[in-house]
Amino acid sequence: MKSFAVIGLGKFGHEMALNLLNQDVVLIAIDKNEASAKKIKSEIENVFIFDATDAVALKQAGISDVDAAIISTGEDIEASILCVMALQEIGVKTIIAKASSGAHGQILSKLGVNRVIYPLRDAAKNLALNLLGHQNCVIIDVTTTLKVARIKATAKLNNIRISEINEKMGSSINIIAYKKDNTWDRNPIEQILIHTDDEILVMGEQKDVSEFIKVYG
Amino acid sequence: MKSFAVIGLGKFGHEMALNLLNQDVVLIAIDKNEASAKKIKSEIENVFIFDATDAVALKQAGISDVDAAIISTGEDIEASILCVMALQEIGVKTIIAKASSGAHGQILSKLGVNRVIYPLRDAAKNLALNLLGHQNCVIIDVTTTLKVARIKATAKLNNIRISEINEKMGSSINIIAYKKDNTWDRNPIEQILIHTDDEILVMGEQKDVSEFIKVYG
Repeated sequence: MKSFAVIGLGKFGHEMALNLLNQDVVLIAIDKNEASAKKIKSEIENVFIFDATDAVALKQAGISDVDAAIISTGEDIEASILCVMALQEIGVKTIIAKASSGAHGQILSKLGVNRVIYPLRDAAKNLALNLLGHQNCVIIDVTTTLKVARIKATAKLNNIRISEINEKMGSSINIIAYKKDNTWDRNPIEQILIHTDDEILVMGEQKDVSEFIKVYG
Repeated sequence: MKSFAVIGLGKFGHEMALNLLNQDVVLIAIDKNEASAKKIKSEIENVFIFDATDAVALKQAGISDVDAAIISTGEDIEASILCVMALQEIGVKTIIAKASSGAHGQILSKLGVNRVIYPLRDAAKNLALNLLGHQNCVIIDVTTTLKVARIKATAKLNNIRISEINEKMGSSINIIAYKKDNTWDRNPIEQILIHTDDEILVMGEQKDVSEFIKVYG
């Protein structure tokens, strides 16, 4: 059974704990603040109230053996750094930490934290991209290099055959699915004639997908 | 040119403003707190310090005409609600608001906010799914029904030909890309022999992708 420790039960830590609850995992939650710990105490068996920069206390709480510890001590950067060092001291395999600023994140990475997360920064970036973006397109990161664009056909794609797109774009992109009347066809044939409000999924490298959107989006 | 108002310059609002900056948009930022406003004043031209629940002040600041207003007044639920009502009063077309709890989000939706966002809750959910999930797989939501799984080959996929997978899975899934030596092949041929540590992208309906992961993940 997987086991996780959530350290810091502020908003993010609380949500983390709730999401890991009842999932057939061993869950240990820690906060030095009694009020924060109490909020979740009725739902989780292993809630401890102590300062998570204390390696001895962490060890006694059984944190050494967890598969991953998630540090979400929020704004207290010093506490977050000391907690990382304490977790490393007692041999925690995977440490994930929430950063409250770029500088904080850089320090965490330098310390060897396995994964640094920036929930608010990432959410803001996504929303901004969405607001700035083309209204009829959503770009999905499939890998760091491969993107899928989901495009709702406007006039630019109306009465265009998939074969015409393939001729124009060459092998730079693949049309991997086509939606008409609420059904996605994952093997769209070249003869398909696209109409306004149909949707297509296009896969390719970032620059090629952007080029496609410029032409047809 | 698109125009946006960011109301509330706490952490999320500040990041929103930074992401919209220098993007060929008109940007108006507002906070009633002078310190929060000053933090960004050197970078944005239109920073106003006033209470954004005041419809008259909002109108004077030119908010009526923005394409979207993003309310990120954080923890002050009453302020966020009053701000929504003031923006509606002056005719803002699109209102996006950050909710600090489920109840807050429900109220915002009922008021007719176009989009309610929960940055911390969503980030926690994603991280939990990731931690609970199969270590060698990431499932990406391409649409609500279509998923792409990115799978790193372990022993289960070692020495398997793509044709064998196709025979076994039928048309339930598509193998849309294959990665070897750091290069993604978006048209993998059936003869390809997969080896440990290669990666594949598999597209299909949720249940079929899950089935694939059960067999090969």
